[in-house]
Amino acid sequence: MDQETRAESLRRIAYARGHLDGIRRMIEEDSYCVDVLKQSYAVRRALEKAEALMLRGHLHHCVVDAITGGEPEPVLGELAELYQLAHR
Amino acid sequence: MDQETRAESLRRIAYARGHLDGIRRMIEEDSYCVDVLKQSYAVRRALEKAEALMLRGHLHHCVVDAITGGEPEPVLGELAELYQLAHR
Amino acid sequence: MDQETRAESLRRIAYARGHLDGIRRMIEEDSYCVDVLKQSYAVRRALEKAEALMLRGHLHHCVVDAITGGEPEPVLGELAELYQLAHR
Amino acid sequence: MDQETRAESLRRIAYARGHLDGIRRMIEEDSYCVDVLKQSYAVRRALEKAEALMLRGHLHHCVVDAITGGEPEPVLGELAELYQLAHR
Repeated sequence: MDQETRAESLRRIAYARGHLDGIRRMIEEDSYCVDVLKQSYAVRRALEKAEALMLRGHLHHCVVDAITGGEPEPVLGELAELYQLAHR
Repeated sequence: MDQETRAESLRRIAYARGHLDGIRRMIEEDSYCVDVLKQSYAVRRALEKAEALMLRGHLHHCVVDAITGGEPEPVLGELAELYQLAHR
Repeated sequence: MDQETRAESLRRIAYARGHLDGIRRMIEEDSYCVDVLKQSYAVRRALEKAEALMLRGHLHHCVVDAITGGEPEPVLGELAELYQLAHR
Repeated sequence: MDQETRAESLRRIAYARGHLDGIRRMIEEDSYCVDVLKQSYAVRRALEKAEALMLRGHLHHCVVDAITGGEPEPVLGELAELYQLAHR
């Protein structure tokens, strides 16, 4: 992972982690379930943004290197798999 | 939230939080991006399981109470909204 | 399903079906795969909108009737299942 | 799109289209909304399978050609975009 992608991904993972602490407190303080659910959705969206960032880095570095290096596999198979795994 | 749903939800949120710490370490140690991505998907799936649990509790308690109490709104509107928000 | 939900759902299903015919033609005419993919995403989003509509109708009729009739099951179990099935 | 991907994608699009006709009949015959919803989910999953197939073909042909041809853009940008568009 390049330096910038790494720094930004870590920042977002830390944000999601802090958000989860907030959700834990909400549950402990018996907040309304619908509000807790919406916060959990927000954490998942934050993770998806971190993932989009990491994927972009992966495409521009690992994928380009593998293909220009004449070894398109396993990178292309992994990419196809990531697209399918991402939302199931 | 009933006692059992709360305990189990907290357990799952704590699990997701620990998992995020693992992802942070993976990024810091420069793990392969594809492996980091798959771990992030796993955290999201863990959150979805916690959400399913909380929604089930919400349906059997808040929703039933609101409808038998003759006040189907805002509960039904919220349910429709949750359904749409859950995956976008 | 109430009359209005039915009419609007049929309209949206017909729209999705016409859209699929467009995708078939795109593939036959060898359109760029990325453009075909985006159109397929659009059909899925159209179906999701039809689903949101039908769910809303289901909540306000079947679910309310079942709960006020003192028979919350199987309706609540089905709802929890729908939320999980919707995006996997 | 290569010949095989095209044929198989067309087969799956045709299947989804037939399935939509079935859903239209279910709505017209006033089937239970939950059953209609589950069928709509099944159509979306069929489309996702066609998409996975087309993406795989895209990766192995257009993406490899663009990168070995020294023109990684716009192909990489499109891939990142598809990944984000696929599920929202």
